[in-house]
Amino acid sequence: MERENVKVMLWGFGAMGSGMANMLLKKKGVEIVGVCDMHPEKVNKSMYEVLGIERGNRKDVIIGDRPEEIIKEGATNIVLLATDSFVKGAFEKIKFCLERKINVITTAEQMAYPKAQEKELACELDRIARENGVTVLGTGINPGLIMDLLVVCLTGACENVEEIEAERVNSLSPFGPAVMEEQGVGLTVEEFEKGTKDGTIAGHVGFHESIGMITDAIGWKLDEQITQSQEPIVSTVYRKAPFAEVEAGNIAGVNMLGLGKVDGKVKVKMIHPQQVEPELEGVDTGDYIRIKGTPNISMAINPEIPGGIGTIAMCVNMIPHVINARPGLRTMIDLPVPRAIMGDMRDLIQK
Amino acid sequence: MERENVKVMLWGFGAMGSGMANMLLKKKGVEIVGVCDMHPEKVNKSMYEVLGIERGNRKDVIIGDRPEEIIKEGATNIVLLATDSFVKGAFEKIKFCLERKINVITTAEQMAYPKAQEKELACELDRIARENGVTVLGTGINPGLIMDLLVVCLTGACENVEEIEAERVNSLSPFGPAVMEEQGVGLTVEEFEKGTKDGTIAGHVGFHESIGMITDAIGWKLDEQITQSQEPIVSTVYRKAPFAEVEAGNIAGVNMLGLGKVDGKVKVKMIHPQQVEPELEGVDTGDYIRIKGTPNISMAINPEIPGGIGTIAMCVNMIPHVINARPGLRTMIDLPVPRAIMGDMRDLIQK
Repeated sequence: MERENVKVMLWGFGAMGSGMANMLLKKKGVEIVGVCDMHPEKVNKSMYEVLGIERGNRKDVIIGDRPEEIIKEGATNIVLLATDSFVKGAFEKIKFCLERKINVITTAEQMAYPKAQEKELACELDRIARENGVTVLGTGINPGLIMDLLVVCLTGACENVEEIEAERVNSLSPFGPAVMEEQGVGLTVEEFEKGTKDGTIAGHVGFHESIGMITDAIGWKLDEQITQSQEPIVSTVYRKAPFAEVEAGNIAGVNMLGLGKVDGKVKVKMIHPQQVEPELEGVDTGDYIRIKGTPNISMAINPEIPGGIGTIAMCVNMIPHVINARPGLRTMIDLPVPRAIMGDMRDLIQK
Repeated sequence: MERENVKVMLWGFGAMGSGMANMLLKKKGVEIVGVCDMHPEKVNKSMYEVLGIERGNRKDVIIGDRPEEIIKEGATNIVLLATDSFVKGAFEKIKFCLERKINVITTAEQMAYPKAQEKELACELDRIARENGVTVLGTGINPGLIMDLLVVCLTGACENVEEIEAERVNSLSPFGPAVMEEQGVGLTVEEFEKGTKDGTIAGHVGFHESIGMITDAIGWKLDEQITQSQEPIVSTVYRKAPFAEVEAGNIAGVNMLGLGKVDGKVKVKMIHPQQVEPELEGVDTGDYIRIKGTPNISMAINPEIPGGIGTIAMCVNMIPHVINARPGLRTMIDLPVPRAIMGDMRDLIQK
């Protein structure tokens, strides 16, 4: 008798959700059984048509905008939710799935370590997941791997840790208009400062979560809320990316800084300059981890692991771990390490 | 009521075992309750005397050479076993502990992924551990982290993996006479070739295990046994380390190469030159991981994470994960990521 495929639904079919679909279609032992998205241009269309991929002999999947008609108990093993950055925004959608006894992986950055900023909602999700015997995980490239899980993993080789610095220097050029807007790319310095003040320029979401994950993992007690700041990266040259244009003197991106204090001292430092076309000013992209301790560890990944592919891969690759996990809210430090899936996904399911 | 400390025993009190003791004595919520070693100069002495550390108000620990008098059911939560490199050598000692319902972490390199070369013994240990409700893990810096777990972790950001290369360029200078002998340091080229032929020069133990761990983790089916070779590193200059002296023209170390084939193609390549005083010939030490896939990933750690401290830290840091794990034989890819322990170890124990 043939084994049943692992069944996956996608909720949110933007760059991330459709990227996950693309990746899933290349994998063995897994199939996409539903897609939910609100975008009028996608609703009622075939997922294959939207992706521009031949359907072949696969069953068609029509994109719908009513979750209650698609995400039903027993219809799927897991939902990949790529709609929100904040726990507050994602909460009702996650709850909706969990109450239907369906596992969830979400790209929502705050869900990577939700108790950092939304302790009550995190407890609530944990309770609902346990009651329904399923698991919810937030992950992605960052938060999820580069500035947290990978840091934690490297401290495993340390007898003692005194200070941690994680730096991610990345290019925003591959991203779309939404990201450009969130980061203030192309604005004048004045507009950027206004946007920072009124909160319309969000910058990177994830420092609270990454710092919370690291300090909890290694057993440091954070003094208080972390300090976070964002400075404009003002371009000295003209820069052009597919979805952005930056005049010299205007904003090419944001330099984010996050600091976590333990016993009155800064023990965790996060540095994250994000900009379009960094190479035009001689900036090399990369991911860096520097641990001061016994021993000191200095790691570099050049160029940086790209954000889009990385987030898509992390979400898809964690599917078996989440299906196999104990019920409840889980984070990357609770589960076995992520890994690529080059074989049949069914071989990885334990229950 | 005060919580009980996590109790640890050390079996093998050489460089690794005594290093773990040193590290454990600096940690909170854990205590050493027994030490077993065969060395006549250590037996019947206080562990604190051998370590050269003030005992303070801690209970004394007298080193004994009879495991049956020290390692008894209920006497400890875990034994850290640092006596062997091969599964065959460690098997009876691990079994001894498991049958007394005691968890085990061992530095034995082959135990990092024992089914790679000792499938039957691995199954047997898994069975004994399950029957007794305890867990056994093999770990260390390599195998255990650098050339396997860290590789697996980075593939988590990949949609697709085509080829993997892991390189560890390290210095043997900090190591003692046993390692110098195993690696043939100081020998003439002729002596080295003889030692390679008759098996007295073992080189690095762990390629089968690291390659087995990676390929199983990501779902590649290895064609057959891996190919492994060792070439002498002939020094062009005079080199001197604490426990070795190398004349120009003689052996400074071993360059190990391991290849794993999938579908007739080399998909995993391990490069591991180990030598004393590499900097004398301009060799920079470091750990490197290169993944060809989507995306490509190129990681470097400079200098390399040192082998001694790294192995000691990995074994101690995995104690809570092993105590918390499901009973049986576990490997690094089954458990949550390793991490430094900067808080109270009791806070990390779930059962």
